[in-house]
Amino acid sequence: MALAPRLTASLRRVALSPRPSPLIQRFSPICPVRWTSSATSEPRQPDAEGTLKNAPAPAKTIQFTAETYPNLKRHSKFAKLTQEHVTFFQDLLGVESAVIDGLSKDASEDIEAFNSDWMRKYRGHSQLVVKPGSTEEVSKILKYCNDNLLAVVPQGGNTGLVGGSVPVFDEIVINMQRMNKIRSFDEVSGILVADAGVILEVADNFLADKSHIFPLDLGAKGSCQIGGNVATNAGGLRLLRYGSLHGNVLGIEAVLPDGTIVDDLSTLRKNNTGYDIKQLFIGGEGTIGIITAISIVCPQRSPAVNVAYFGLESFEQVQNAFREAKNQLSEILSAFELMDGRSQRLVKTVTGKKRPLEGDHPFYCLVETSGSNTDHDSEKLQTFLESVMEKEIVSDGVLAQDQTQLQDLWSWREGISECLGHWGGVYKYDLSIPIADLYTLVNDTRDRLTKAGLVGEDDSYPVVDVLGYGHMGDANLHLNVPVRRYDKEVEKQLEPFVYEWVQKRSGSISAEHGLGIAKKSFIGYSRSPTMVALMKQIKNLYDPNGIMNPYKYI
Amino acid sequence: MALAPRLTASLRRVALSPRPSPLIQRFSPICPVRWTSSATSEPRQPDAEGTLKNAPAPAKTIQFTAETYPNLKRHSKFAKLTQEHVTFFQDLLGVESAVIDGLSKDASEDIEAFNSDWMRKYRGHSQLVVKPGSTEEVSKILKYCNDNLLAVVPQGGNTGLVGGSVPVFDEIVINMQRMNKIRSFDEVSGILVADAGVILEVADNFLADKSHIFPLDLGAKGSCQIGGNVATNAGGLRLLRYGSLHGNVLGIEAVLPDGTIVDDLSTLRKNNTGYDIKQLFIGGEGTIGIITAISIVCPQRSPAVNVAYFGLESFEQVQNAFREAKNQLSEILSAFELMDGRSQRLVKTVTGKKRPLEGDHPFYCLVETSGSNTDHDSEKLQTFLESVMEKEIVSDGVLAQDQTQLQDLWSWREGISECLGHWGGVYKYDLSIPIADLYTLVNDTRDRLTKAGLVGEDDSYPVVDVLGYGHMGDANLHLNVPVRRYDKEVEKQLEPFVYEWVQKRSGSISAEHGLGIAKKSFIGYSRSPTMVALMKQIKNLYDPNGIMNPYKYI
Repeated sequence: MALAPRLTASLRRVALSPRPSPLIQRFSPICPVRWTSSATSEPRQPDAEGTLKNAPAPAKTIQFTAETYPNLKRHSKFAKLTQEHVTFFQDLLGVESAVIDGLSKDASEDIEAFNSDWMRKYRGHSQLVVKPGSTEEVSKILKYCNDNLLAVVPQGGNTGLVGGSVPVFDEIVINMQRMNKIRSFDEVSGILVADAGVILEVADNFLADKSHIFPLDLGAKGSCQIGGNVATNAGGLRLLRYGSLHGNVLGIEAVLPDGTIVDDLSTLRKNNTGYDIKQLFIGGEGTIGIITAISIVCPQRSPAVNVAYFGLESFEQVQNAFREAKNQLSEILSAFELMDGRSQRLVKTVTGKKRPLEGDHPFYCLVETSGSNTDHDSEKLQTFLESVMEKEIVSDGVLAQDQTQLQDLWSWREGISECLGHWGGVYKYDLSIPIADLYTLVNDTRDRLTKAGLVGEDDSYPVVDVLGYGHMGDANLHLNVPVRRYDKEVEKQLEPFVYEWVQKRSGSISAEHGLGIAKKSFIGYSRSPTMVALMKQIKNLYDPNGIMNPYKYI
Repeated sequence: MALAPRLTASLRRVALSPRPSPLIQRFSPICPVRWTSSATSEPRQPDAEGTLKNAPAPAKTIQFTAETYPNLKRHSKFAKLTQEHVTFFQDLLGVESAVIDGLSKDASEDIEAFNSDWMRKYRGHSQLVVKPGSTEEVSKILKYCNDNLLAVVPQGGNTGLVGGSVPVFDEIVINMQRMNKIRSFDEVSGILVADAGVILEVADNFLADKSHIFPLDLGAKGSCQIGGNVATNAGGLRLLRYGSLHGNVLGIEAVLPDGTIVDDLSTLRKNNTGYDIKQLFIGGEGTIGIITAISIVCPQRSPAVNVAYFGLESFEQVQNAFREAKNQLSEILSAFELMDGRSQRLVKTVTGKKRPLEGDHPFYCLVETSGSNTDHDSEKLQTFLESVMEKEIVSDGVLAQDQTQLQDLWSWREGISECLGHWGGVYKYDLSIPIADLYTLVNDTRDRLTKAGLVGEDDSYPVVDVLGYGHMGDANLHLNVPVRRYDKEVEKQLEPFVYEWVQKRSGSISAEHGLGIAKKSFIGYSRSPTMVALMKQIKNLYDPNGIMNPYKYI
């Protein structure tokens, strides 16, 4: 895997002032340590053997979603796959590799990766995977499925966290990997047009060659596809700086269930001619159509990238640091990430790496700046560091001195998710909470599970720890509960507790991961009955037969 | 009117290097000149007497829209206003000033400003204006209108350019000016929640006190309302830097025709729980509901603002300058505006002001930077100026040395629109065109009108000139044809020529001004029949009786 974009950007030694202040000297260089570049905070796809390091369980033992959710019943209105259907798709797509036929022969080995998700949490029974090579093929596939009441699951890189991209029963998988061409890029406007199946990292590397950057970055970039990113309204690491896909995506080409091609692939920054219908597909999770291409405005890439890593004594100080960063780093601030002390201890335990800072702090932050002028950025960052040290907002900190160190500092944030899998399983919540209350949920959840006698250091306790990290700049908390085994008692303590807690503070029960199957039943904690009714109206309008990604979303 | 935000920001003398290069010396200080602060490039509302300086015609002679568009017929399904209806609204709203009743008495003087637009181009026959004071009142008004088949026009600041906010026949005007409270502001996240009727400038001044900025700025800021801005998806001067409202608006409260309150006033940057329905109201031009409140993420205000003004010899050089600006000014670039030589000569003719640069250039650009560090920004701008001079991209230029000069330089861009009205009328087109072709349309249009013998210096010719200016950074051209009188022959030459020209280049016939009544019939030049059909489906879904802002949009 190529290095992450932030890692390949040209770096520099921090230009400390000739007589560094005593405070700033504490930002000493850190020791370079090794960290594999595939470490991500978000999902990776299985390797060639279908295995994931630290995955909770081997592929064969993944429980079928239909068993995990016994209340879900296959809709009887949907047709069952026949040889005639399979032949239609084979004739339509021509290429042999474009159809994986599990009906007329045993293709379970081939089909398994499409039927289950990277977390090994969701598993369907699909007997057919089709891989269209063009928008017209997608149109013909969907029309046929709609006419014949065959349910489908659109699938991109299959890196989601809520089971949205794998079948529940026997839905046909429409995998977009063959639609992987970059269609155009305009260097003056920075507008990229590309097929939905282009891998995010491929798009970003292409843009890097042209001094631009994809306005979205996330751990799964090596596997996830830009069509899936848009369909799930992915947030990720660059949202603080570049804003959401609702603002950056300028156009979409999509196919409705009845085969209609939504030809809204505008490359204009401004186009006020009617309702912005494409927005419904952004975050629509493949439930009203399949995105086949997107156009997106991409910013200039910043040649100067700096990363600092702090230890702080309280969440109040984290908030103060964020306020100062927004104020002083302003236009160059590109990330402000939060990690609690527990998450950092855990990374240390699993990786055995040397920690960036001495001692132990209750909270850590990672601050990244990206700008066009190395010296200016260094000066701004230095002033910021001096001020947060002087005001005693921050207790200790380091500044990356070169690319290796920068990579290492990011690994203490991006490596959390992978390390969490170490003990067996993780209960993961992706929440938006007003900033002042953001971390209180972690404490409240820990107290609750501790009181219930579920947290402890030896194997008799299911829960290893309760911790939090996330995109502080977006008020987005990842509450994580690593466990030694999945346990009904733990689940009973967590739900609906977490959702009710978030609802009381008008937060979101799914900040960036979407609904999928995991959050479908909990939407009422974040949306009113009126909003849910309006959403159902939209679903019925575009997909009256309900063939698109059934059993999920709303 | 208070000064525009950019003008009140703390300014500074440009820090030229101790030994300025010969090139940069050409960026000499300009003479401060007087320019009234009300000069705008976009509409103002009539003053207390209902008059506009340089307005083409006094209010009484404005033609009724129904006469300008004789093909438009009042829908017979709509009810005619009765005393019973008026009494209902009077009882509902209580306050006497909240209802302007033109049915039971002659209120034509009071009602005129609500029946006609600031350009004196559109005029309706409404006999009733209602001014709700709360979302619940909006809900009751709409439900009553829907139940009784009374057509309505939602109205904000009534500063639009396409006749979208005034009635065509006897629609009831629902004016939002009484809903003008700022509901909340969070200083850590920068999220503002406010009623739809808050004036844009009031919101921005409120934010200025808290070191934040409204991520939208336009000439009409002293009159336009933020609800109207969102309903028309206003673009304006800050889009290049802060992006579109589709990205910045986090939540909307709106009322559907049947009285349903869409309670989607989220204050979360991330909330992936279902279809993003609020997006349909952004740019929906009041055709599916009335926005009653918005929540919007507001960036940190930049303390350092710089403005430079250039003369250039060709449109190719303008493109080169834009490329360099994007590349070198990157994160601090906040505006890149284009004005052709003709537009600048015209401002000179009308205002008699001293021009910022000696001589005459075919093109001019205004470049604004906004950042957090004055010295850094000056240095970046100076490096940029040196490079564009050295490469002979720019022929001449000035840099504002103080606030007065900054204001003056902006007046050469923002003053164009007002000056254009000097001769009687203006044909205005607001277009998105791929940047390389952007200015070709102005030349082609001028050639066409000249060939037709319509352009000349004395009163026998209807056309004064053909010129172009606009938001280069957004590929948004304002093609303007100032005329001595409106003339059918000129119209025949302009339309459909301009629209066909734009269509061939996959541009937009309405970049930021919307459709309203002016562009309704031309949507086919920018949208396919499929897209228009999908839009009609949405309209029918939310407003099956068609009472919302009829005769307009799609």
